[in-house]
Amino acid sequence: MTTVTIIGSLAAFLTTIAYVPQAYQTIKTRDTSALSLPTFLILFLGTCLWGTYAVLIHDIPILMTNLISGGLATIILYLKLTAKPGEEKPVARTL
Amino acid sequence: MTTVTIIGSLAAFLTTIAYVPQAYQTIKTRDTSALSLPTFLILFLGTCLWGTYAVLIHDIPILMTNLISGGLATIILYLKLTAKPGEEKPVARTL
Repeated sequence: MTTVTIIGSLAAFLTTIAYVPQAYQTIKTRDTSALSLPTFLILFLGTCLWGTYAVLIHDIPILMTNLISGGLATIILYLKLTAKPGEEKPVARTL
Repeated sequence: MTTVTIIGSLAAFLTTIAYVPQAYQTIKTRDTSALSLPTFLILFLGTCLWGTYAVLIHDIPILMTNLISGGLATIILYLKLTAKPGEEKPVARTL
């Protein structure tokens, strides 16, 4: 494994797991007030395109990153779209 | 310009501008309650590594994406780190 591959894989790993804490926090608190709907709509679309790009150029790090981070962005997007106005209080919900 | 380059550039453009609405909303409202600190810390670190990776493999789309989205993530991270607890109300501040 070359240094470049290690850096690329670490970057891919970090930007992949980056949304895990946000998804976890949003699932737990259902608080989406400070989250920007356009941001997660664009992230969803962008990660779909990155996935397509990765398939076309056969780049696994880019593909994996965007499959997972796109999935996490979709969860947050869903929670933002389905949040009832004023639903701020942490809500213990079974997943 | 090949189809692959168009898809890659569009993906890069979308994931670059994706954080603009979030940064704008956070600057305007100073509401960072629903934002996950670990997420933006990891995004900051991840985009730095992606930038390094892009330089090493001479990939302009990946470099541009991560310079700008990393910059936007840093703004949001700064606002999250400097937010005073309970600072929820939109605050008109000169930038």
